[in-house]
Amino acid sequence: MYVIVAYDVNVDRVNRVKKFLRQHLNWVQNSLFEGEVTPADLEEIRMGLKKIIDEDEDMIVIYRLRSADAMKREVIGVEKSSMDEVI
Amino acid sequence: MYVIVAYDVNVDRVNRVKKFLRQHLNWVQNSLFEGEVTPADLEEIRMGLKKIIDEDEDMIVIYRLRSADAMKREVIGVEKSSMDEVI
Repeated sequence: MYVIVAYDVNVDRVNRVKKFLRQHLNWVQNSLFEGEVTPADLEEIRMGLKKIIDEDEDMIVIYRLRSADAMKREVIGVEKSSMDEVI
Repeated sequence: MYVIVAYDVNVDRVNRVKKFLRQHLNWVQNSLFEGEVTPADLEEIRMGLKKIIDEDEDMIVIYRLRSADAMKREVIGVEKSSMDEVI
């Protein structure tokens, strides 16, 4: 499956969240990652994020899609990552 | 169709982008909006954002889905918006 992950976490934890997600997904822009994952990968991501964030203060949204084909991705402005090469 | 919009823009323009998107979509969390739109709405969003942002510096990603059913939305941590009531 394909996931889009967006986070809104306290500045004290931003770097840890980013570093963790980089190990599993592709960085798109500030606070936004994407990537193809297995159900096991996704569970690892969930568990890892829960260990890092404060669940009473931080928020992470995970959008799960059947595959990358289920969405069209469009960028306005500067392309900060090199996702188009990845997809 | 359904769109997820994430922005990474210079702090000087963040408030204008947020205020603009609030008129068209539902706020999810910092830098993230979602909503059902018509093709005409989407074109209005694109044009409006292009007027506000600096396309050499800012980045906005728009994910287009056939409908909200094409994705599953999962939140880890605190729910900052009331999107679940909306969807």
